[in-house]
Amino acid sequence: MVRIGIIGASGYIGAELVRLLVNHPEVDLTLVSSRQYAGKPLTQAFPHLAGRTELVCEDITSLEASGRADLFFTAVPHQTAMTVVPELLAGGARVVDLSADFRLHDRQIYEQWYQTHSAPELLAVAVYGLPEIHRSAIVDARLVANPGCYPTSVLLALAPLLKAGCLDAHSLIIDAKSGASGAGRAAQAATLYCEVTDGFRAYKVAEHRHTPEIEQELSQLCGHALTVSFTPHLAPMSRGMLSTIYATLIGDHGQAELTQIMTEFYRDEPFIRVFSDGQLPATQYVRGSNFCDLALRLDRRNRRVIILAALDNLVKGAAGQAIQNMNLLCGFPEDQGLRVMPLFP
Amino acid sequence: MVRIGIIGASGYIGAELVRLLVNHPEVDLTLVSSRQYAGKPLTQAFPHLAGRTELVCEDITSLEASGRADLFFTAVPHQTAMTVVPELLAGGARVVDLSADFRLHDRQIYEQWYQTHSAPELLAVAVYGLPEIHRSAIVDARLVANPGCYPTSVLLALAPLLKAGCLDAHSLIIDAKSGASGAGRAAQAATLYCEVTDGFRAYKVAEHRHTPEIEQELSQLCGHALTVSFTPHLAPMSRGMLSTIYATLIGDHGQAELTQIMTEFYRDEPFIRVFSDGQLPATQYVRGSNFCDLALRLDRRNRRVIILAALDNLVKGAAGQAIQNMNLLCGFPEDQGLRVMPLFP
Amino acid sequence: MVRIGIIGASGYIGAELVRLLVNHPEVDLTLVSSRQYAGKPLTQAFPHLAGRTELVCEDITSLEASGRADLFFTAVPHQTAMTVVPELLAGGARVVDLSADFRLHDRQIYEQWYQTHSAPELLAVAVYGLPEIHRSAIVDARLVANPGCYPTSVLLALAPLLKAGCLDAHSLIIDAKSGASGAGRAAQAATLYCEVTDGFRAYKVAEHRHTPEIEQELSQLCGHALTVSFTPHLAPMSRGMLSTIYATLIGDHGQAELTQIMTEFYRDEPFIRVFSDGQLPATQYVRGSNFCDLALRLDRRNRRVIILAALDNLVKGAAGQAIQNMNLLCGFPEDQGLRVMPLFP
Amino acid sequence: MVRIGIIGASGYIGAELVRLLVNHPEVDLTLVSSRQYAGKPLTQAFPHLAGRTELVCEDITSLEASGRADLFFTAVPHQTAMTVVPELLAGGARVVDLSADFRLHDRQIYEQWYQTHSAPELLAVAVYGLPEIHRSAIVDARLVANPGCYPTSVLLALAPLLKAGCLDAHSLIIDAKSGASGAGRAAQAATLYCEVTDGFRAYKVAEHRHTPEIEQELSQLCGHALTVSFTPHLAPMSRGMLSTIYATLIGDHGQAELTQIMTEFYRDEPFIRVFSDGQLPATQYVRGSNFCDLALRLDRRNRRVIILAALDNLVKGAAGQAIQNMNLLCGFPEDQGLRVMPLFP
Repeated sequence: MVRIGIIGASGYIGAELVRLLVNHPEVDLTLVSSRQYAGKPLTQAFPHLAGRTELVCEDITSLEASGRADLFFTAVPHQTAMTVVPELLAGGARVVDLSADFRLHDRQIYEQWYQTHSAPELLAVAVYGLPEIHRSAIVDARLVANPGCYPTSVLLALAPLLKAGCLDAHSLIIDAKSGASGAGRAAQAATLYCEVTDGFRAYKVAEHRHTPEIEQELSQLCGHALTVSFTPHLAPMSRGMLSTIYATLIGDHGQAELTQIMTEFYRDEPFIRVFSDGQLPATQYVRGSNFCDLALRLDRRNRRVIILAALDNLVKGAAGQAIQNMNLLCGFPEDQGLRVMPLFP
Repeated sequence: MVRIGIIGASGYIGAELVRLLVNHPEVDLTLVSSRQYAGKPLTQAFPHLAGRTELVCEDITSLEASGRADLFFTAVPHQTAMTVVPELLAGGARVVDLSADFRLHDRQIYEQWYQTHSAPELLAVAVYGLPEIHRSAIVDARLVANPGCYPTSVLLALAPLLKAGCLDAHSLIIDAKSGASGAGRAAQAATLYCEVTDGFRAYKVAEHRHTPEIEQELSQLCGHALTVSFTPHLAPMSRGMLSTIYATLIGDHGQAELTQIMTEFYRDEPFIRVFSDGQLPATQYVRGSNFCDLALRLDRRNRRVIILAALDNLVKGAAGQAIQNMNLLCGFPEDQGLRVMPLFP
Repeated sequence: MVRIGIIGASGYIGAELVRLLVNHPEVDLTLVSSRQYAGKPLTQAFPHLAGRTELVCEDITSLEASGRADLFFTAVPHQTAMTVVPELLAGGARVVDLSADFRLHDRQIYEQWYQTHSAPELLAVAVYGLPEIHRSAIVDARLVANPGCYPTSVLLALAPLLKAGCLDAHSLIIDAKSGASGAGRAAQAATLYCEVTDGFRAYKVAEHRHTPEIEQELSQLCGHALTVSFTPHLAPMSRGMLSTIYATLIGDHGQAELTQIMTEFYRDEPFIRVFSDGQLPATQYVRGSNFCDLALRLDRRNRRVIILAALDNLVKGAAGQAIQNMNLLCGFPEDQGLRVMPLFP
Repeated sequence: MVRIGIIGASGYIGAELVRLLVNHPEVDLTLVSSRQYAGKPLTQAFPHLAGRTELVCEDITSLEASGRADLFFTAVPHQTAMTVVPELLAGGARVVDLSADFRLHDRQIYEQWYQTHSAPELLAVAVYGLPEIHRSAIVDARLVANPGCYPTSVLLALAPLLKAGCLDAHSLIIDAKSGASGAGRAAQAATLYCEVTDGFRAYKVAEHRHTPEIEQELSQLCGHALTVSFTPHLAPMSRGMLSTIYATLIGDHGQAELTQIMTEFYRDEPFIRVFSDGQLPATQYVRGSNFCDLALRLDRRNRRVIILAALDNLVKGAAGQAIQNMNLLCGFPEDQGLRVMPLFP
């Protein structure tokens, strides 16, 4: 049994890690940290976990945590992660970090979109944890930077056709919609029930911090620098993310051929479902699961390809993908503990 | 008092017309038709109207309806409207039609996206009822074709900058999100509560029938033919529509100047609110009202303008705009009966 | 024009007062106070009010506020109200207080359920502002204690049959369900969107502070002391309250006769709708309006009467009722500014 | 491997059976029937199941189905079940029926609340499938009548204290709230998204068909006949059921002792969680799981016990409990395939 610690267990992502790990047959959850709930059972923060875990939250430094687990998930805010992760690594553990702190390879770009980086030496060490693209590198990593939810949906959507040269890399427009759980569990008026329900809005238009992460990975996929227009929206739902992506077609492939390229690209992937039967992805079809559903349409009148990607922002967009990375790091079957089905309705 | 009849009163738009008209001081609602509720009080279909109307639904032909009202709202499906409207007009009444049947000037385009048109001679008679653009023509119309909800949001969003020549007319991408009331009150599995809630999906990607309506009006605004990419989505909310529109900038205006152009364009409009103070439109801020809220952002890195438009699809997107048109037709103050405030939260 | 001030305008109830008052023809809103938004336009707190009010929030003491309005609504938390209201009254204004501070006549009971009362002399001055029961006393009041949302629904539901002696006063069980807006706009984790949506829970079972308020008024109605069992629940909706009330039948009235008693009792009330046609109240039929909808069923097998009451907790349960009280205080038609229709769907 | 057939697989309960069974290690799903989707992959009805099942729906008679599976789940409407089940049993299979047709032991009572029963001889054969109460009888059953969702929550809530003699059996009032999935997937206007969202209503007050089922089982628990008042409500959520139950206390136990009796009663149950730490059950804490969460409060002022029970109506209230029964019938561990955690948020 591999011993697992979660640093930052009282947020939605922490809870989601616990939900999935308690049914994972090859790991032992030995440590959950939370400042807010220190000394209290984790089930006080999350009554839904009752009956399946007796863990008590600890307020613990990374140094004290070292040695208590073989692998840590760090589910703390960016800027906190960069102070915690180095000590955990120094203690000999491997780390899957769910913050943004180690996703960007270029320190300058990081500091331009976030703030000063206190552990820049780790930027070259960290592997970007999108298994469908970087699987072989993840296997040997000490530190995996778990992708953001928006980038996961966008990269999985664009990788096949962008690599195949079917899309004009300078035409990319990403219109993404997320549920409210992406905003976390901290008390704030903006995500109160009454502010979100029966409403829809854009936010951080053309200035969201996931932009450079998307651009870094897309640039790598197509072999040259590019920029994208990225507009995130808040939808009145708890979980779920749908990205609608617009790109100008290069060449004269038809819709069926383009879909075929995408299907081939993900043929052996356990978590990618490409819809080729006329149905369209919908977030309710992936809820609670590690699936990312994809489909595309060709807008012939305008020679644009429209790609749709749906995932659960807390699972494939966070905790599920982190466990998928853990499985790769530990040599477990990649879908171990992740065969949980979508919950619909 | 002007006598008003509603043909098709048992749908959501019909109910919305009644909600607003019972508080309109210059009209008298004399007739509501509904096949399904014929002989029954309208409040049996819509208990929320109880106490404010005693109207009984009638199953009535257009011929019989003629003479019973001075102005009719026809809130019936397209294809039905084209059989009803001619007789109502022949009877001497004016008509505000809320279907798609008289919105397109070009019969061929109509028949390509819908089906055969049985009253094509009225296509030249009908005035497209978007008051902010066609106010003077509406005033003298016999037949007003009330715009679709999506087109209303898109046209109001694009008119100022497109007319000002600031946008590349061939770059337009419209990513629109609507609440479920747009699908109507007919029983269908696809819009059951459980299918819609906590979920998000696109539908009719690049093939929605509002596309030619949008293109007709935008082409007229910019003086030449254009096509757009249009992707509608279904959001888990009852009312509300948010359109996020992407266009390549022409010229070197900054965000503030572009916002200023938009603000000026709508300076005297009672129902258009341009947000210039950093806030972004949200559907919950217009719920139940006839407002359309607008804002824009300049994505400098990609020289794209991103325009956001929010409205209530049943009000400014349907019944409210229809009453606005009625006010113009009847010489009432344009906001008579429409000063109802948004309901938030 | 009567000058109106709102102390505490940045909560949901404050916003609701403004929504309704801007369309009230006989008042002039001269002052809105808010510590949090002091110096900022009210529309920054509530963008939905944009275009209809230019008011700027003030951080103002009650002393400074005195003289700036003829009538004040105080929409501040209990315990704050008792410090603000005396000064406003001393300044010569009349006050409709929306807190709990002046609803209980008995200081001891107040202090047992809340905390020490610093203005107990006003308890005898205040009139309990439920117009359907205390209309004549309200007309002459200087201080109106606007009822709580739960008590309003319960008292309107029980008054007719309790006064008529049809119910065993010691059998009353109240199972009430409220939307999340009742919890206010303050940031707190418990009312985040993700905590409330797609969920249902009871809270403060048998210990909610509205209990003594309900008991005081019911006791007065039936002429002797009584206690009730009261269980509030949080439903995943923004607005709306449904109370399901169980009482043992006295006598042998049938369902139709009991409904008839209720209908008679409220015959001339503009805001009470008794459903006698087989339909049941639902919160969506009163949303945004000042209606309280009532119906009852007789459970013959158990000789129990089950009464259902639906209202909008922010309107008839707070701001709407407060304006109804204002209308009485000022001699305006009782439904002035309150003819706004329910918003459905 | 035990071969499993599902008759009626295109409803929400059918889909839920599939969701859980595809991860059950000891069964093989060999047949799914659906008239509506006959000849089509099950994933066309339920895209969320894509990638995990290749099953094609069949329109099949019970006779043809016989022999294709060792155990059948019948998830068809009542009245259909009574025609299907006898043939499946005759074919040698065991059956877990999810309709109401075999829950009531007394034919007369069945026919009074439903309609004529065409297979009354099976009423004595069927075992009421509430494992926590009837486990030993279920083990040997040929036909298990899977309990209704409301009765499951009510019986689990009341069994401990009723058996212990702490409650006045003639005082029982059940106020229950359910999500919309209980109404099924058939197209009907009453459960459209717009009719349900942001609303709350009671229905079938004092006349719901689950009443005799509750009374049958409660009578058996306490040893004498009793009747209850039962009011179901529709809450704006997809899944979830909360029952709030009122009973007059007998004896002088305190809240802690009563909770202790309940805790003891369910000490070894894998799916019952009694909250004794101050928290209250909430439907969002059981979503998607087979848990039933319980807690109670003593209303000392009125000597009433208030019991709260939360479960997922599609899992412990239907498909999950059916699989729990299957596990008992087949000698599998009772929680096999049912250790799936609640999905929160």
